[in-house]
Amino acid sequence: MVMTTTQENRIYASAAEAVADIFSGAMVCVGGFGPVRNRAITLCQALADRTDVRDLTLVANSFPHQPLAENKLVKKFIGAFGGSVYRRAAASEEGIRSGEIEFEPSPQGILTERLRAGGGGIPAFFSPVGVHTVVADGKERRTIDGKEYILETALKPDFGLIRAEKADALGNLTGIGSTLNFHPAMAAASKVTIAEVDEIVPVGSIPPEEVKIPGIYVDRIVVRDPELNKAEEAAEIQRRARREVPKDVEKVGLSQDLMALRVANMLKPGQYVNLGMGIPTKVSNFIREDQGVFLHAENGILNYGPEPDEDEYRWYYYNAQGVPVTALPGAAIFDSLAAFTMARGGHLDVVVLGGLQVSAGGDLANWWAPYMAAGGMGGAMDLCTDVPELIVAMEHVTRDGEPKILNECDYPLTGKACVTKIVTDLAVIDVTPDGLVLRELAPGVTVDYVQERTEPQLLVAADVREMQF
Amino acid sequence: MVMTTTQENRIYASAAEAVADIFSGAMVCVGGFGPVRNRAITLCQALADRTDVRDLTLVANSFPHQPLAENKLVKKFIGAFGGSVYRRAAASEEGIRSGEIEFEPSPQGILTERLRAGGGGIPAFFSPVGVHTVVADGKERRTIDGKEYILETALKPDFGLIRAEKADALGNLTGIGSTLNFHPAMAAASKVTIAEVDEIVPVGSIPPEEVKIPGIYVDRIVVRDPELNKAEEAAEIQRRARREVPKDVEKVGLSQDLMALRVANMLKPGQYVNLGMGIPTKVSNFIREDQGVFLHAENGILNYGPEPDEDEYRWYYYNAQGVPVTALPGAAIFDSLAAFTMARGGHLDVVVLGGLQVSAGGDLANWWAPYMAAGGMGGAMDLCTDVPELIVAMEHVTRDGEPKILNECDYPLTGKACVTKIVTDLAVIDVTPDGLVLRELAPGVTVDYVQERTEPQLLVAADVREMQF
Repeated sequence: MVMTTTQENRIYASAAEAVADIFSGAMVCVGGFGPVRNRAITLCQALADRTDVRDLTLVANSFPHQPLAENKLVKKFIGAFGGSVYRRAAASEEGIRSGEIEFEPSPQGILTERLRAGGGGIPAFFSPVGVHTVVADGKERRTIDGKEYILETALKPDFGLIRAEKADALGNLTGIGSTLNFHPAMAAASKVTIAEVDEIVPVGSIPPEEVKIPGIYVDRIVVRDPELNKAEEAAEIQRRARREVPKDVEKVGLSQDLMALRVANMLKPGQYVNLGMGIPTKVSNFIREDQGVFLHAENGILNYGPEPDEDEYRWYYYNAQGVPVTALPGAAIFDSLAAFTMARGGHLDVVVLGGLQVSAGGDLANWWAPYMAAGGMGGAMDLCTDVPELIVAMEHVTRDGEPKILNECDYPLTGKACVTKIVTDLAVIDVTPDGLVLRELAPGVTVDYVQERTEPQLLVAADVREMQF
Repeated sequence: MVMTTTQENRIYASAAEAVADIFSGAMVCVGGFGPVRNRAITLCQALADRTDVRDLTLVANSFPHQPLAENKLVKKFIGAFGGSVYRRAAASEEGIRSGEIEFEPSPQGILTERLRAGGGGIPAFFSPVGVHTVVADGKERRTIDGKEYILETALKPDFGLIRAEKADALGNLTGIGSTLNFHPAMAAASKVTIAEVDEIVPVGSIPPEEVKIPGIYVDRIVVRDPELNKAEEAAEIQRRARREVPKDVEKVGLSQDLMALRVANMLKPGQYVNLGMGIPTKVSNFIREDQGVFLHAENGILNYGPEPDEDEYRWYYYNAQGVPVTALPGAAIFDSLAAFTMARGGHLDVVVLGGLQVSAGGDLANWWAPYMAAGGMGGAMDLCTDVPELIVAMEHVTRDGEPKILNECDYPLTGKACVTKIVTDLAVIDVTPDGLVLRELAPGVTVDYVQERTEPQLLVAADVREMQF
């Protein structure tokens, strides 16, 4: 904690003053997950304007603000996603492609865990995440109680740029909805934490129970510039409006919606379920209200419901894909650290992920392919670490008609021997110790048709049948 | 998560049913810190009534419920305190003394951290706490970035008995005041978590932001028996009433109150300060309202104030000594895990601890002496791990007149080379690289008088002076 002689010292008149001592070569972490409004854009822009600053190591879930790359402040980026989620071919991705920005991909949950460790005096811990992947390269391995782990080390950034709803002059911060994500762990980890807030409220107006980040972690407070965010937010709303369900090309097999429906029908009452990006995201549209399924998202919400109508829309309730959701009765919010504690600790019952490739032994590759610049595993590696049922929902073949179910994956792995079930546009296949068992066929699809498009030899279940919806 | 087919399955009609499958040899953790009302006594009593159960390993801050020891259910106790805090010579202490109950003392913060690790898939982590103490015995050591650490392993109890304010049928729990302490970490860690609550409320009546323990961790819910608690609570209130400031024996040197006042005057505006047990607890009575000092307590409250008047008393605001406090404007609450993240992470500015012995090199021994049965380091080891200023406030000599400031400590250490200042009834002494420097003398006390009662040779500051208040 930087010593504060009077409480008011923490409130800074401008973002420029608050970031004035960020130095070349510093490690800077930036919170946020999903909507731009959840990132400290006022602070990021003030930092990007500091064109005297060079060689920053930036730590964030995804690249937080393109001007930081455009103005060439960043030497290295440690993140779960190599590019901005929303802008393709942005400056950060160009930088990574050209080698100008070094990219260290990190599993999302382990990224928050490394930050929290840094904030809590823990220099290193053994992690079950990404043990059989590139994440383990060069790291110490150890088998504990028969299971393999790798040693992950703490992150202690020099500066943290975080976002919150309200602040008091003592630095206590509130958060609302599913917006906490990386912010609490980064506040604890950073030597100097700078918070961008909507509003400064009098000391005493925040009940102690509602403080989400205690002032002990917060050194400086800046009120956000709503004008600066407005342009970014409008662009985001436009992008969201364009994100309509794509018309399925006429083809044999299921539409993506029907695949999502098939998966939704597999979920049982009382199950805690995480839905990954791509087709899995659509599953939430097909879960019935009375189904009793609890959806979990990595940014920090449990028991969320479908996309809200226009009048029920609240920007601060969204899922890990940044898609607006409703908080169902009995919902709970928390941060990404807690979300991944649930995942790694084996508290989820089902995880549904997209896939680029699945092997006969249940290996999954879903975060990088040669046509991508940086890629990024997001939270997938964390999610597949300890879950009894991992369903992969994907097209059966690539756009070029190549099988995606292979004897062995070519692409870098997300997880080894973790997939239990594959749902494609053509079939439902179980991964069993004996091999891949074909259980269900899409309407009009034959066993031979599926086998021709699948590299490993399939076992055909005695009761193989047409999918029911 | 134990699969739940209907939501209502989590609500149990009786505590007896909820603990019916706890088996001999199981590991059972019990939350709570301070007041008996913060422990799941209804569940503990139902378990104690299961006289068919034997050989439990109990994990808790302090021994949670004497009938568990009286009825001989416990084989081993892992805790920060070896006995009940309130009842001396209770069955648990007798059991530890006789060797019938094995006692594994654990630093308080590391205990919560080991539980959280167990709940989050982390099998082991390097810890800076207790490195030079018995806590390190038999543990792997490693130097990282020039600092020594020991490897601590996760705890994964079979059952967790926790306490909360309200629950909904989905298992979402609320907490109020500084009552969270070990409960969230234990909920995450336990294979089966059983919560004892004041009240069950309809699903949807708890705003998502107010859920302190999400339902994903909670398997069973029982409403507390207020009659059962009543007797225990009354005893506690009686004990509190008896806890009056002891009349200082007529003697040379300062009263305990004056020692506390001297320490209080050393604290600077903006400092985050933790006060340990004994004389340090009294310091809070002498901090001025306008002093701008923020008090931190290990059970999970920041910015608490003095003991409240009768009409301001709320049972759920208390400090780590279990003493009722007020939540000052700008207070924040959290759990013990967060409280110790702050401590270990170097976020506190000053820690004030009591002492049994302090060495010339600044070693501290304050948790066990030969006249104690079990002792217990509480949070002291965690608190002295990474704090720039560690003040020990203690009597200068033992009741028998023996020096407590020694060349080397005889008793087991709490921390090595961690003390920066010693405040006694006779003097204020700085621990410096050159040795112990005598800075201030109590009124009427001479340099020689202090030196005669101090084993190491003291350096006398050029400006040594009488203490000012």
